[in-house]
Amino acid sequence: MRKIIVGVMGPGEKATASDLQNAYQLGSLIAQEKWILLTGGRNAGVMDAANKGAKSANGLTLGILPRNEQDSISDEVDIAIFTDMGNARNNINVLSSNVIIACGMGAGTGLEIALAVKANQPVILLNDDAESKAFFKKLSPDNVYLVDSAIDAIATTKAILK
Amino acid sequence: MRKIIVGVMGPGEKATASDLQNAYQLGSLIAQEKWILLTGGRNAGVMDAANKGAKSANGLTLGILPRNEQDSISDEVDIAIFTDMGNARNNINVLSSNVIIACGMGAGTGLEIALAVKANQPVILLNDDAESKAFFKKLSPDNVYLVDSAIDAIATTKAILK
Amino acid sequence: MRKIIVGVMGPGEKATASDLQNAYQLGSLIAQEKWILLTGGRNAGVMDAANKGAKSANGLTLGILPRNEQDSISDEVDIAIFTDMGNARNNINVLSSNVIIACGMGAGTGLEIALAVKANQPVILLNDDAESKAFFKKLSPDNVYLVDSAIDAIATTKAILK
Amino acid sequence: MRKIIVGVMGPGEKATASDLQNAYQLGSLIAQEKWILLTGGRNAGVMDAANKGAKSANGLTLGILPRNEQDSISDEVDIAIFTDMGNARNNINVLSSNVIIACGMGAGTGLEIALAVKANQPVILLNDDAESKAFFKKLSPDNVYLVDSAIDAIATTKAILK
Repeated sequence: MRKIIVGVMGPGEKATASDLQNAYQLGSLIAQEKWILLTGGRNAGVMDAANKGAKSANGLTLGILPRNEQDSISDEVDIAIFTDMGNARNNINVLSSNVIIACGMGAGTGLEIALAVKANQPVILLNDDAESKAFFKKLSPDNVYLVDSAIDAIATTKAILK
Repeated sequence: MRKIIVGVMGPGEKATASDLQNAYQLGSLIAQEKWILLTGGRNAGVMDAANKGAKSANGLTLGILPRNEQDSISDEVDIAIFTDMGNARNNINVLSSNVIIACGMGAGTGLEIALAVKANQPVILLNDDAESKAFFKKLSPDNVYLVDSAIDAIATTKAILK
Repeated sequence: MRKIIVGVMGPGEKATASDLQNAYQLGSLIAQEKWILLTGGRNAGVMDAANKGAKSANGLTLGILPRNEQDSISDEVDIAIFTDMGNARNNINVLSSNVIIACGMGAGTGLEIALAVKANQPVILLNDDAESKAFFKKLSPDNVYLVDSAIDAIATTKAILK
Repeated sequence: MRKIIVGVMGPGEKATASDLQNAYQLGSLIAQEKWILLTGGRNAGVMDAANKGAKSANGLTLGILPRNEQDSISDEVDIAIFTDMGNARNNINVLSSNVIIACGMGAGTGLEIALAVKANQPVILLNDDAESKAFFKKLSPDNVYLVDSAIDAIATTKAILK
């Protein structure tokens, strides 16, 4: 039976301490809801922290990898999907997630949000970057949600899934 | 922790009765081994039969869909990945499976085998099509395996995974 | 011998009159420089206008189409590349263009800019949308250029190519 | 105005002397017909030889590259398209060519033919590999053509394009 997938996207090497904390909490809360966690799968930053959080709550984790790499995967990824498509793999992340949560900001995260907006997928922004919020909220008022905490992000996800 | 993924590829609408029987048995045996079943995800032919077999044994099923379709997915797919890449999505199937089992023959199945051969992934041929066996075995003697039954396919998979 | 390719990206059906005028002029100026014009290839909006401008100056036009469609291509596309990858095809546009000019704004244009920024490709913004300029310039100060006219966009392109 | 594109696919480093001779002649004849030559774009084997042949007759050459590489492109490629999709880029080659000519045989060439067959695109086999001819001709009797020389391949291409 089809399971609900929630994507958590955010910076890798450039994640802030606050991003990592939010990502871990998001992963844990997603697992508690029995949703599957989808990330970019690498062993860095928001991806890795979210996966650790999900596994701390016995969740199931799905990693969509950019290449065919076997050596830079988060240890906490249960199911690894190798795309060998580079940045274009982010489109698969967005299409396969029922809801996307963007945790932090950077070039890759901006790309994920832009892909979600283009595909009319719901995307939740959890960051303190005013310019990204102003831009994406104007671009897609109905599909972009602004929140201030991991708990709010999960509450918004529940409301979207209803 | 990384789970083992075994892909079962084969015809959709043009699957034969024998293909469907083999696919169901493959799905069931894969689930019994606690491997994840990966298919093309559509509600037709070998894909659907393999998923039904896996669910009959309480397995976990992963479907890699060619489009962003929500309406032609096998009911037995637990985790749906939407690629929106058409035939190019088959490359993801091949890269993400530890072992690929080609059950039956047709244009799509031939393509999956060709992708596996090109990516140096192990691929097991379970069909009675002499031309495909001769061609692919010559093209890649080390990565192409020929078997006569679902049980043999699983035994060969185990040997490859060792 | 390798030719220089300049990509012009912008809204399709939702292009403004100003976008269309800029796109036509960009196409014409690109052709006069003997550069190849790359667009998304459809017979709508900025893509179509840029192609018409390029052909008015005897340029060569390259269209990277999202699907395998044969019936919605701009008549002014000389060379059609069919990707069948949907929104992911925009990554090819960005990687294949020496410089990208974003003419106007919308979900698809925002995506193209985000892909360029992620790939560290130079991208020139020609629009009157303050939020997009603030967001992308902050995200990538070195690779994002802001201009006010088609003529400035071409002058900036020349400076980048030096 | 839309130009006709003919794809020439074949081995890179493993091309035989006969493959290279055929590829050069194919490139030259394609250019003489004013068709655009499409190849995989790398500076090796059949790709490189076909491009050299096309440029010897003042043709226009299009290379669809697997990565974002700038350093392994055939010097004779006029227009380089960077896909960063690995083997999946071969699907673009096949969809964008009006006719595909497979010159020689190997894992990559087998993949191109399999993609053409799956997409119902016409594909001409110019090789002395009996197994590939038997397999693909059986798989797709109407879209697979067998020829013995570059001149026959071009005559068959003309007949298909009519």
